[in-house]
Amino acid sequence: MRMKQADFDGPEPGMRTGRIEALSDGVFAIAMTLLVLDLALPGAGETVGLREFLGGQVDRFFNYALSFLLLAVFWVRHHQQFHFIKRTDAGHLWINIFFLMFVALLPFSTSLLGDYPDEALAEAFFGGNILMLGLLLTLSWAYATRRYRLVDRGLDPRHIALPRERGMLTIIVAASAIAVAFVNPDISSYLYLLILVLQIALARRHRRPRGKPDSDSGAIDVPRSGAS
Amino acid sequence: MRMKQADFDGPEPGMRTGRIEALSDGVFAIAMTLLVLDLALPGAGETVGLREFLGGQVDRFFNYALSFLLLAVFWVRHHQQFHFIKRTDAGHLWINIFFLMFVALLPFSTSLLGDYPDEALAEAFFGGNILMLGLLLTLSWAYATRRYRLVDRGLDPRHIALPRERGMLTIIVAASAIAVAFVNPDISSYLYLLILVLQIALARRHRRPRGKPDSDSGAIDVPRSGAS
Amino acid sequence: MRMKQADFDGPEPGMRTGRIEALSDGVFAIAMTLLVLDLALPGAGETVGLREFLGGQVDRFFNYALSFLLLAVFWVRHHQQFHFIKRTDAGHLWINIFFLMFVALLPFSTSLLGDYPDEALAEAFFGGNILMLGLLLTLSWAYATRRYRLVDRGLDPRHIALPRERGMLTIIVAASAIAVAFVNPDISSYLYLLILVLQIALARRHRRPRGKPDSDSGAIDVPRSGAS
Amino acid sequence: MRMKQADFDGPEPGMRTGRIEALSDGVFAIAMTLLVLDLALPGAGETVGLREFLGGQVDRFFNYALSFLLLAVFWVRHHQQFHFIKRTDAGHLWINIFFLMFVALLPFSTSLLGDYPDEALAEAFFGGNILMLGLLLTLSWAYATRRYRLVDRGLDPRHIALPRERGMLTIIVAASAIAVAFVNPDISSYLYLLILVLQIALARRHRRPRGKPDSDSGAIDVPRSGAS
Repeated sequence: MRMKQADFDGPEPGMRTGRIEALSDGVFAIAMTLLVLDLALPGAGETVGLREFLGGQVDRFFNYALSFLLLAVFWVRHHQQFHFIKRTDAGHLWINIFFLMFVALLPFSTSLLGDYPDEALAEAFFGGNILMLGLLLTLSWAYATRRYRLVDRGLDPRHIALPRERGMLTIIVAASAIAVAFVNPDISSYLYLLILVLQIALARRHRRPRGKPDSDSGAIDVPRSGAS
Repeated sequence: MRMKQADFDGPEPGMRTGRIEALSDGVFAIAMTLLVLDLALPGAGETVGLREFLGGQVDRFFNYALSFLLLAVFWVRHHQQFHFIKRTDAGHLWINIFFLMFVALLPFSTSLLGDYPDEALAEAFFGGNILMLGLLLTLSWAYATRRYRLVDRGLDPRHIALPRERGMLTIIVAASAIAVAFVNPDISSYLYLLILVLQIALARRHRRPRGKPDSDSGAIDVPRSGAS
Repeated sequence: MRMKQADFDGPEPGMRTGRIEALSDGVFAIAMTLLVLDLALPGAGETVGLREFLGGQVDRFFNYALSFLLLAVFWVRHHQQFHFIKRTDAGHLWINIFFLMFVALLPFSTSLLGDYPDEALAEAFFGGNILMLGLLLTLSWAYATRRYRLVDRGLDPRHIALPRERGMLTIIVAASAIAVAFVNPDISSYLYLLILVLQIALARRHRRPRGKPDSDSGAIDVPRSGAS
Repeated sequence: MRMKQADFDGPEPGMRTGRIEALSDGVFAIAMTLLVLDLALPGAGETVGLREFLGGQVDRFFNYALSFLLLAVFWVRHHQQFHFIKRTDAGHLWINIFFLMFVALLPFSTSLLGDYPDEALAEAFFGGNILMLGLLLTLSWAYATRRYRLVDRGLDPRHIALPRERGMLTIIVAASAIAVAFVNPDISSYLYLLILVLQIALARRHRRPRGKPDSDSGAIDVPRSGAS
C-alpha cells in the first residue's frame, strides 16, 4: 500500500516525511488564517466609528500582510527542503516540531506588535520569533545534509548551499531587526521586507545556472514524472 | 517516490502545484469555518433574551451564508484552474499566496458588515475584498495561460476563456457593489448573489458543447483514469 | 499525473470527489476543534473559583461531547457515501457545500445551548442544525444514487438503502427533539444519543449479511488492494 | 481508483485508515495551533505595560510549549500505530474518535493551568486529559493487535510491545502527576517532561537491535519503496 512504505529509515518507525509535511501544511494554514483574528478588535464597545476604527488599524493591516507573507516564505522554504529530504529520523522530526511550535506562535507575536506599537520589546519579541524560525529551519537543513544523512548522496552541492544561504540571511536580518528595535522601533519591522525581496532575488540567481547545461548539474537532476 | 517528482519546472525547486492546492484547501477550510466565530457574540453580557438575540442576528446569518458560499465559489474556481495548470513557478506561486491572503481576510471583512450595518464604508471594504479575490484569481489564470506558460499547449481555447469570463464578471459585480454601497448600502450585498447565480448559469452553458462531439474538443480531452 | 484524472465527469471541469473530501475533512476537523472554544469562558472576570467554574460547566462538557460525537457520526457517513460515489457534478457539489455550511455552524448552535440552558428556542435551534445536516446528507445520497447518477450501475441495493435508512432516522430524531424542546427542553438533547446508538446498531445489522456469502453481494464487491 | 480500495474490511463500509489519519492530522494541527490563543490575553484593558505583561506570561509560555510538545508526542505515536494497522473497524474507529475528542480538549485544559495557577484542581484536570489520551491510545493499540485483529499476522512482537510500553509509562506518569497535584501543584506539570524524555530514550533503545541483523526482525521488515 502506497502510504505504508519507506518507514523504517529512522529510529521512529512509522514516521515518514509525507506525514510531517501534512502536519506542517495544517499548522501553516491555520497560523496564517488565525492572523486575521488579530484584526477583529472592536466587538465589546462598538462605539468607535468605522472610519476611525479602520484608520487606527493601518498598522495592524501592515502587520497582518507582513506576517502572512513571512509565513508563506517559511512555508515555501520548508517544502523546498522536504523536496530533497528522502527520509527522516528522530532528530530531524523533533527539530521540525520545534520549528512548527514557533510557526504557531507567530500570530501571538504579531498581536503584540499591534497591541504595543512603537515598543522596542514588542518588536524584539517579534524579531525573536522570526529568528527562531530562521535558526530552526537552517538547523533542520544542516542536520539533514550533514554527511548526506537524510538526502541522496548525489545531491548537487548548489542545492545544499541555497537553503543555507537563505537561512543565514534570514538570521542576519532578524538579528539586525532586534538590534534596530532598541534604537528605533518604528523602522524595525520594515527590515523584514528584505526577506521577502531576497526570497525572489535568490530564486532568480538560482535559476540562471540551470539555463546553460553543465556536467555536474545533469548528473543529479531529479527525474521528472513521465520523462525519466 | 510519487510526491518527489515533477518539481524542477520552475525557479522555485521543490514547489509543486499539489502542495499549493494542499495549503489552499487548508486556508479555505479554516476561513470558511472561522466565519462562524462572527456569530458568537453575546458572551459577556448574556442579559439579552435569546429571541431578541437571534432576531438581531438575521443580518449576520445572511452575511455568514453569503461569505461561506462566495468562498466556496472561489474554492471551486481555484481548483478548476489547477486542474489545467501542470506546473508552477515563482510568479504563479506568489500570485496565489496573495490570493490566499485575501481568502483569510474575508472573515474580518464579513465581521465589519455585521458590526457596522448599513454603513457604506463597511460594504465597500467587503466589496474591495471580493474585488481583490476576483482580480488575483483572474491574474493567476492570465499568468498561467499566457503563451501556455503553465498549461499544456493543446489546451482548448474555450477552457481558457471560461475562467477568464467568470473572473471578469466577478470583478464587474464587486466593482458595481462598491459603487452602489455609497448610494444605497442596504442593497449592496445582494449584488453578490449574482456571482452565485452566474456560477451555475455559466456551468450549464459550458456543459452543452460537450454533448455534441466536436473535433477540437476531443483533441484536448484529459484521459480519464481507467478509460485512457 | 495522478491528481489530474477523472475530472470531466460533470459540468464543473476539474472538480473531483477527492477534492470535496479534502475540503470536508478540513471543515469537519476545524468545526470539531472549535467546539472547545465554547468551554473557555472565564477570562475577563476570573474571580470565580475553579471548583464552581467547572461545576457550572457540566452541561457544557456534555454539549461538547455530544456535538463532537454527532459531527463524527456525520463525518463517518459522509465518507461512506463518497466511498461509493465515483464522480461529481454541479448539483452534488453544491448540496455538499450547503452541508458543510451547517457543519461549520454547529459550534455556534452548541454555544447557544450553553449560553441559554433550558430554553426551548436554543434546543430547537440546535435541533434545526442537526435536522439540516440530516436532510442535506440524505438529499446528497438520493441525488447521487437516483438512476445511478454518480455511482456504479452494479451497486448493491442494500448499500444504497443503508445510508438512506440512517438519514431518515436522523431526520426523525432531530424533528422529534425539536418538538420535545417546546414541551421539556431538559430532555431534548438526550434524544440525540439515539443517533449515536443507532449508528452502531445499524452497523452491526449491516455487517451480518456479509458473513454468509450470497450471490448478489459478491457481484459488487470492491476489489481490495493487493487481493484483486 | 487508489482512494476507493481496501474498504470492506470492517462493519463500516467506506472507512479506511487513511481517512482517519487525515482527520487526525487536521485535529492535531488545529489543537496545536489553538494553544496560542491562550497567550493572547490583554486585549480589553491594554493598560498593563508590555514588560509586566510578558513577565506574567512566563508560566503560560511554559504551558504552551509543554502542551504543544505533548500533543506532538501523541501525534508521533498515533502515526506509529497506523503504520502497522492495515484495516479498521467500528470499534477501532470510535476509540480513535474519543481519542481525538481529548486531543481537541487539551487547549481548554491548558488554559485552566494558566487561569488557575498553583491550583491542585487545574493540575488534576490537565493530568486527567493526558491520562485519557494515554489510556485511549493504549486501548486503540490493544484492540488493534489483540489476536492480530487489525495488523498483519507476521508483525514482530517487539513492534507490538513498544507502543504498549510507552502507553503504560504515559499512564503512570499522568496518574502520578494527578496525585502529586494535590500535594504540591507547583511541581506537577514538570512530571510530564518525563514523557518527552522517555519518548526519545525509548526510541534509542528500540533502534539498537536493528543495528545487528537478527532473524525474526528481517522476517517482518516492511519493504522500502524502490528497494523491494
